[in-house]
Amino acid sequence: MLSNHLQNGFETAKLVWSQIPNSEEAEHEGVGLLSTSGGSSSVESLDYEVIENYAYREEQAQRGKLYVGYSVVVKWFFALLIGIGTGLAAVFINISVENFAGWKFSLTFSIIQKSYFAGFLVYILINLILVFSSVYIITKFAPAAAGSGIPEIKGYLNGVDIHGILLFRTLIGKIFGSIGSVGGGLALGKEGPLVHTGACIASLLGQGGSTKYHLRYRWLQVFRSDRDRRDLVTCGCAAGVAAAFRAPVGGVLFALEEVTSWWRSQLMWRVFFTSAIVAVVVRSAMGWCKSGKCGHFGSGGFIIWDISDGQEDYSFEELLPMAVIGVIGGLLGALFNQLTLYMTSWRRNYLHKKGNRVKIIEACVISVITSVISFGLPLLRKCSPCPESDLDSGIECPRPPGMYGNYVNFYCSKDKEYNDLATIFFNTQVMFYTLAVVTFGIAVPAGQFVPGIMIGSTYGRLVGMFVVNFYKKLNIEEGTYALLGAASFLGGSMRMTVSLCVIMVEITNNLKFLPLIMLVLLISKAVGDAFSEGLYEEQAHLRGVPLLESRPKYKMRQMTAKEACGAQKVVSLPRIIKVADVVSILRTNKHNGFPVIDHSRNGERLVIGLVLRSHLLVLLQSKVDFQHSPLPCDTRGGSKPISHSFSEFVKPASSKGLSIDDIHLSSDDMEMYIDLGPFLNPSPYVVPEDMSLSKVYNLFRQLGLRHIFVVPRASRVIGLITRKDLLIEDGEDSTTVELQSTSVRAQRRDKSLLTRNTEAELPLLNGLLVEDHN
Amino acid sequence: MLSNHLQNGFETAKLVWSQIPNSEEAEHEGVGLLSTSGGSSSVESLDYEVIENYAYREEQAQRGKLYVGYSVVVKWFFALLIGIGTGLAAVFINISVENFAGWKFSLTFSIIQKSYFAGFLVYILINLILVFSSVYIITKFAPAAAGSGIPEIKGYLNGVDIHGILLFRTLIGKIFGSIGSVGGGLALGKEGPLVHTGACIASLLGQGGSTKYHLRYRWLQVFRSDRDRRDLVTCGCAAGVAAAFRAPVGGVLFALEEVTSWWRSQLMWRVFFTSAIVAVVVRSAMGWCKSGKCGHFGSGGFIIWDISDGQEDYSFEELLPMAVIGVIGGLLGALFNQLTLYMTSWRRNYLHKKGNRVKIIEACVISVITSVISFGLPLLRKCSPCPESDLDSGIECPRPPGMYGNYVNFYCSKDKEYNDLATIFFNTQVMFYTLAVVTFGIAVPAGQFVPGIMIGSTYGRLVGMFVVNFYKKLNIEEGTYALLGAASFLGGSMRMTVSLCVIMVEITNNLKFLPLIMLVLLISKAVGDAFSEGLYEEQAHLRGVPLLESRPKYKMRQMTAKEACGAQKVVSLPRIIKVADVVSILRTNKHNGFPVIDHSRNGERLVIGLVLRSHLLVLLQSKVDFQHSPLPCDTRGGSKPISHSFSEFVKPASSKGLSIDDIHLSSDDMEMYIDLGPFLNPSPYVVPEDMSLSKVYNLFRQLGLRHIFVVPRASRVIGLITRKDLLIEDGEDSTTVELQSTSVRAQRRDKSLLTRNTEAELPLLNGLLVEDHN
Repeated sequence: MLSNHLQNGFETAKLVWSQIPNSEEAEHEGVGLLSTSGGSSSVESLDYEVIENYAYREEQAQRGKLYVGYSVVVKWFFALLIGIGTGLAAVFINISVENFAGWKFSLTFSIIQKSYFAGFLVYILINLILVFSSVYIITKFAPAAAGSGIPEIKGYLNGVDIHGILLFRTLIGKIFGSIGSVGGGLALGKEGPLVHTGACIASLLGQGGSTKYHLRYRWLQVFRSDRDRRDLVTCGCAAGVAAAFRAPVGGVLFALEEVTSWWRSQLMWRVFFTSAIVAVVVRSAMGWCKSGKCGHFGSGGFIIWDISDGQEDYSFEELLPMAVIGVIGGLLGALFNQLTLYMTSWRRNYLHKKGNRVKIIEACVISVITSVISFGLPLLRKCSPCPESDLDSGIECPRPPGMYGNYVNFYCSKDKEYNDLATIFFNTQVMFYTLAVVTFGIAVPAGQFVPGIMIGSTYGRLVGMFVVNFYKKLNIEEGTYALLGAASFLGGSMRMTVSLCVIMVEITNNLKFLPLIMLVLLISKAVGDAFSEGLYEEQAHLRGVPLLESRPKYKMRQMTAKEACGAQKVVSLPRIIKVADVVSILRTNKHNGFPVIDHSRNGERLVIGLVLRSHLLVLLQSKVDFQHSPLPCDTRGGSKPISHSFSEFVKPASSKGLSIDDIHLSSDDMEMYIDLGPFLNPSPYVVPEDMSLSKVYNLFRQLGLRHIFVVPRASRVIGLITRKDLLIEDGEDSTTVELQSTSVRAQRRDKSLLTRNTEAELPLLNGLLVEDHN
Repeated sequence: MLSNHLQNGFETAKLVWSQIPNSEEAEHEGVGLLSTSGGSSSVESLDYEVIENYAYREEQAQRGKLYVGYSVVVKWFFALLIGIGTGLAAVFINISVENFAGWKFSLTFSIIQKSYFAGFLVYILINLILVFSSVYIITKFAPAAAGSGIPEIKGYLNGVDIHGILLFRTLIGKIFGSIGSVGGGLALGKEGPLVHTGACIASLLGQGGSTKYHLRYRWLQVFRSDRDRRDLVTCGCAAGVAAAFRAPVGGVLFALEEVTSWWRSQLMWRVFFTSAIVAVVVRSAMGWCKSGKCGHFGSGGFIIWDISDGQEDYSFEELLPMAVIGVIGGLLGALFNQLTLYMTSWRRNYLHKKGNRVKIIEACVISVITSVISFGLPLLRKCSPCPESDLDSGIECPRPPGMYGNYVNFYCSKDKEYNDLATIFFNTQVMFYTLAVVTFGIAVPAGQFVPGIMIGSTYGRLVGMFVVNFYKKLNIEEGTYALLGAASFLGGSMRMTVSLCVIMVEITNNLKFLPLIMLVLLISKAVGDAFSEGLYEEQAHLRGVPLLESRPKYKMRQMTAKEACGAQKVVSLPRIIKVADVVSILRTNKHNGFPVIDHSRNGERLVIGLVLRSHLLVLLQSKVDFQHSPLPCDTRGGSKPISHSFSEFVKPASSKGLSIDDIHLSSDDMEMYIDLGPFLNPSPYVVPEDMSLSKVYNLFRQLGLRHIFVVPRASRVIGLITRKDLLIEDGEDSTTVELQSTSVRAQRRDKSLLTRNTEAELPLLNGLLVEDHN
């Protein structure tokens, strides 16, 4: 009896799994998961595979072909919303930071006229309040908003869900925390946090708002697959970069190169659109602010590096000092990564274990130190009038304000005076470097772009000054070398390549130096790679975010798929299973997927598919699919209504989901059965047991899978699929097919008959199809 | 007896396949093939899978770990060479074209002073000679060099090898053909051909020069896998775009978006490096030419669109006319695609079947027509002095020369006169459009960028003029609208998005209009997509290049893997096969891969791997692996020396390879046996028979496969591979492994023992390992 209906079971599952819509969301390879049995409790699995359920088909049947066009429109609309949202968030952060900083400086400046010391105290106090507000928000309210967030987002897009990184409270914490920490004058930037902000906005839009804060709008809840959410988050990342640097192309490339693990060319254009929207929003806001409606906010909030008056040309002699900058950048960047790694791991293991109070005190102490240094250093040297000799060599005096042009000219009132901050900072580069290292990892939102640019441009300018003195005849600008220095440090630390290059070009709005920036980045990245991994990879590693790299490890070449499974015991389920058995299996192990085994007509055992733990939990909780008989459900006539809606199987974006301990079943329930047939993935990817693990890795990584079955070698080959078998045109009617191959057509006709019969038999479908068939 | 040694056979194959080096070339998934039984005889299969042979391992054993570093250095060195080569080729083409064109115009101009008609004739004649030389070279010498070459390169990178596209003669034909056709004033550009030129240079460098012309250098022959060649060709494409438009970032994005089908992030940086080299080379050459050493060559040869004096800002009212430009671009672009498609298919089916003479006559006729139009049109209106009223509205008079600034100011000697070519071209846009359509597809190298820019900028300027008149108060520049028009037409025709956007920005060297260009491209692409496919896709389709798109067709969702195989009969080979059987199998079908079946110890049939037709042919031709006994070769003691070098299995880059008809075997040979064990791919990817075809498609497309085995459902699951199983660190010693899982370690020890034993037994390996073991 049992085996008689295997074929039907197959058909059911196939039907369910094949009726996914003709839209992007339908490519339903889930993204890998991290077993919750891993070390860090904060790391969770991403259930990207959840969507392919029978209830999904139900939705499709309700909506029909129109849904395809609808979903495309919705996706573009969301890209628009993400762009607008991220752009506005960036503008808000910038306006706030600029106003706080401006107000702080004008207050300090006015007090300083009366008492130096009082001004000093006020300056320290304001910074302290701002930093305290930031660290308080983060520790009490949104712990996931600390740091830059880029490693976490990278992990999310690689398939690892770190708890809480995309919550509404994280978004709020990120925005206000950034304002506090950046406004408070710490040695960090707001660019990394903006990437995280963009990702949060995208994710929240995708789930229709926050559940917890009753900000959820049903009409917005259209993105139900984790794949769609991932696409949205990718858009959000690009939007964040575009907003941070006003670099739309850089944003796209950053998303492509740095954060995403899976990339589809269709997505590229949408990501680009989002970035363009951000650029338009930011531009409009800046235009609006020019009329003075935003207080101190002007263009200063964005990194804009104007080297339009930089040198026109470069000669071959300059390539050597530029290469030197690249080497320095690589070395200092790798050192920075290593030092921050030690700092962070020390913090995690000792300091931050002592609770939030320690985190708050730490941030405050660092704030005071930073204030003292930034206030005290310029005092070491008095304002001097601009030397006449320097005017010839092309150095501007006073220097035009850089990205954070607040310090220069701070104490000097006259136009042609400068307080030689440059010289001081050259002497105290070590100081700033140390500040950046120490600041990295405190519990506030913190980006490393601005510190990197500050450090890099300092030594770059140093090299530039040397070059100016050395090659006197050339038309050399220090500014160019400062730019290259910044690029080299960022390249040596973050190891970004193409995207960083484009971001630097877009920041400077100057394409002339592109080859030079590339040269410097090539060198600094190569030098850095010789010592350590990139900043984001190291941080992700430290935080227990297990990223799957794009290439398999060398060792995998000598391993087989079977060896990789190790001693792990496979727990297989029969198709019709007793509820008590399900419960005991779910309790006794932590596997997230189970093979389902059934017997064919001739008694042969066959693997009929994969069922997910989360789906089993939903079935156990709802109880509507329990049945008394141990027979497949599709044999008992079409009486049973559809019992599950699609949304039940969708994992909430930012919660832990169901646990077996949450489900309470009576002893009667325990005696009943479940037919897993309709709920399984009928064809998970399989590999033969002795396939090289590097091949398996490629399969897993390229397709973004969660589970691969390792099976014995096949006994025979039914067919070979080659390129020409896959060159099928859509929209061919049966006549065309007939001309090509009669046998295919015959098969198809059989299939369609079979399918229709199966449909008519299937209780699952009856609720929907009854109008059509009767 | 036979079945006893299956396990050894497995180990042999596994050894061979697993000892691939730790370098990029080692990711050995081949790229799909096209069965040669397909319609077009010019289309061939790409044997990307060839490399994974036992002889490859031999090479590795000889070179050891040092080889890894060596291969990385070599790859970067080749990226450098490709950059230099493509840059120089671009400079050569530009110098030649500019000099021919300049000489032509000055000659015509000097004759025109005496006789209008004589000048007219000379002009026509010179153009005719240039075009004739181009079409003659192409038809007689390098037929594969006709057209832009982008569809063919796209096909190559998708896995379809069109015969002859990467030959040395094609390169020569492309370079000199471009000079003739562009210098001859036809309505086409040299940008598309430069992409093909870059690809040819890359491919020829990769195979160490041309075999046929005895230009082959052995030390250059380091790229033996088709995967490496593909990477090189990708670099070449990017270099071509970078050289054509002096747009390094655009080149990378073009390669990423438009031509490649497989992309690895490691490749991106190398491609970017190549592009940067091109930019440096071109820049240096231009600097060198500025001193007058290159005749008429200046910056004019490259598309440089100077809108630095364009408008500073744009207002919201302008978005409507810009959207209109987008719609026009989409419509005209789609129409252009459709018209060229009809033209090309008509040419292919009727005109070009009549032989080369017709092709030559056709090109000459079109040349004369083009000359008459381009010479005659400006005569329709006399030179007029610049009107005073126009000077206020910001229109420059005479207009600064555009990309092909040869016509404007051609007849007018005075500075403040213009011959109103603009107005004429507005009236005759239809004429130029028609010219471009008619010219497309004649047998000369031809790019569509320049015609596209010409057409687009014309109607863009028209809209701009209208806007200037309509919104009188705004600071509007027609030049901006011309730029947007060009972008819209290219977007509507080629459907490139991000890369086109970046190319336009890099051409104009102005980032201000990026959001506007994006807006226009969004609209024109969407409008164009509503009507037809992109230009390159349509042309590829027409030429019988079956591109596998990135997304499976909708229809595939309802099909299973088994259905896709259709009626195709699978021809399986036994492990030990008689030579006569191999010959008869290879003669009676055209399959390119054969499953190999053997029996295990307990008599069970097992699929042990895949053997390629090309490998079988190599074995048949060399005969050294023939054996008298029908027993596996590894049981007869280690007496047999290694008989194949790796290079034997490498398919020549641009030839048809061996055919079964080329191989002559004696009747004695026919009676012997071959053990296929060492020559097979032991673990091709497999899919269960009822897997959805869209899933199979994703597997095939994402991993770039050639063959997938369709097998029955497995009877049991040996293990499940999840993310955590793949998080293996390199460089772990066995102690670490021991801590993690004792069973894995135990297994590995067994394995290594087994492997060593097997090695000692294997005749194949003895030649290499005998020194170590004795």
